[in-house]
Amino acid sequence: MSERHGLIVNCLPLTDKERQAFCDAVAGTGIEQQFTGVSAQRGTMVWHAQVPDELRAQATAIIGNIAPETCADYPQLEWLQTWSAGVDRYVAPGVLADNVRVTNATGAYGQSVSEHLFAMMWALMKNVPMYARQQSEQRWHDLGSALSPVGARVLVIGTGDIGSHFATLCKAVGAHTIGVRRNASKPAAGIDEMHEFDELDALLPDADVVALIVPAADDTYHLIDGRRLTMMKSTAILLNAGRGTAIDPRALAHALSEDQLHGAGLDVTEPEPLPADSPLWSEAHCLITPHVAGGNHLAITEQRIIDIALRNVRHYAAGEPLENVRH
Amino acid sequence: MSERHGLIVNCLPLTDKERQAFCDAVAGTGIEQQFTGVSAQRGTMVWHAQVPDELRAQATAIIGNIAPETCADYPQLEWLQTWSAGVDRYVAPGVLADNVRVTNATGAYGQSVSEHLFAMMWALMKNVPMYARQQSEQRWHDLGSALSPVGARVLVIGTGDIGSHFATLCKAVGAHTIGVRRNASKPAAGIDEMHEFDELDALLPDADVVALIVPAADDTYHLIDGRRLTMMKSTAILLNAGRGTAIDPRALAHALSEDQLHGAGLDVTEPEPLPADSPLWSEAHCLITPHVAGGNHLAITEQRIIDIALRNVRHYAAGEPLENVRH
Repeated sequence: MSERHGLIVNCLPLTDKERQAFCDAVAGTGIEQQFTGVSAQRGTMVWHAQVPDELRAQATAIIGNIAPETCADYPQLEWLQTWSAGVDRYVAPGVLADNVRVTNATGAYGQSVSEHLFAMMWALMKNVPMYARQQSEQRWHDLGSALSPVGARVLVIGTGDIGSHFATLCKAVGAHTIGVRRNASKPAAGIDEMHEFDELDALLPDADVVALIVPAADDTYHLIDGRRLTMMKSTAILLNAGRGTAIDPRALAHALSEDQLHGAGLDVTEPEPLPADSPLWSEAHCLITPHVAGGNHLAITEQRIIDIALRNVRHYAAGEPLENVRH
Repeated sequence: MSERHGLIVNCLPLTDKERQAFCDAVAGTGIEQQFTGVSAQRGTMVWHAQVPDELRAQATAIIGNIAPETCADYPQLEWLQTWSAGVDRYVAPGVLADNVRVTNATGAYGQSVSEHLFAMMWALMKNVPMYARQQSEQRWHDLGSALSPVGARVLVIGTGDIGSHFATLCKAVGAHTIGVRRNASKPAAGIDEMHEFDELDALLPDADVVALIVPAADDTYHLIDGRRLTMMKSTAILLNAGRGTAIDPRALAHALSEDQLHGAGLDVTEPEPLPADSPLWSEAHCLITPHVAGGNHLAITEQRIIDIALRNVRHYAAGEPLENVRH
């Protein structure tokens, strides 16, 4: 193995034992490592990366979601390992040099985000948000029919780690799962049948649940717009835990006000935070959560992020290909 | 087969085709049948039984939940088929003569009630009720950690049709299920390990979810009281969809106000409706739904009730043992 050189700036909030594992991962190579993480951030919902100015000039690798506007401060950067799954702010044009590899934490968030989507689906099927609100008025009032996932057709748009995990949960409680992805020949666990995006218009009218887990991109912008909302069943549930821009918020507010859907569960919105004057806040059949499906809302997510980063530090030190490459 | 005599008063809201099936069930026997159901009740959340006075004197069998205080008006009654699962109002002392058999609709409600319990569990794990309420204030605010059923110990107290169905749902998403019933040697689908009621105190401290689906009875009154609430984990979720009397409401309000539990999901309360001055209404970690888990909130429930009643009409006409006998 040829001698390697470089400096990893590791912003993870690590325990002493975890830090030792990262030290061992580079031991005996020419790769140095500096730890800037604050262990007190462990257990908080969002981690913040801090890199002192003197390390920015030398860093060849960063583990952590540094502020995208500071990327120009890292002239030696070869590799950025994010602790998020989304990397759109880093791979946007002009943010990083072309030769910088970006790896993400795909795999860490599948359980947390898919479970949150699943909880929103169940809540809307059983009218839980409306019951929670009428509880504030001490009101004991039957809101009528409920829905069931048994035999429901669940359309999962975006079948990566999160979508596949969500589909697996839905199948486990009796739903039929239909995936939509760029390449339908690529299978995904939990998906009964896979389709491509050009089939979306044909699939929407039969869907009982439509779950969006697509990254921000030109071709996912307002993927669900007014035209597609009118194609959906009046008993359908729309869920979004990918990027808020996948749904036209004005069209959705209109569709909900006209009872074109049974309900919508949004963990992401356009823009975020959702402005106070958005009509979505007051739609009885809309459930809004403030981008909390992911983050570190489950303790196991933190451990998975650290495991992914540790594997990639070993690869980097050994000059091997990295995992979870997104750019 | 000996000639039988009798009059069934059938209060079910039937379609013409279903009514024909009930006619066929008694054809050629000495059993008569009168239909008093109103088909317009189909699809409503609760059915109401109506029996004209002139039929009460002759009825040997009733299909429907007649008002318990009118039971004395049926001197010939041999059999009561309820469309509810609970029959405590009919088997209470002095309501029916000892020789009247009572059969219920156990099996019809398992899916509906267990799904509602499951939805309440997920909602509380992901803080959905609190997000739904802060939505009324246009508030975009992260409420912190969530919980997961993966690896959770779910204690199911009462493992009949509903409890078994609920346990099956929990197992399907990664939980370990522990049943509590009168006779632990009797197995139930979905239950990983079965225990008896005298082991409850030993099981509570390790439970992540405690779901109550017990009938009203002397030994289930305030089964969860202040003493047992203090034994539970501060991260535990308590659910009730059996009878409200299984939980001491004052002790629960106190436990929630002291953060002794993560949350409680109540579809049944003591008393019902829950009085406007109950402190439970305003507990942030309490989710109250107004006894809507069962009823006919899922369309498939109605069909299952009718199927159970039809099978028992066939048995009654043929002089065979009835199904779902509760008294």
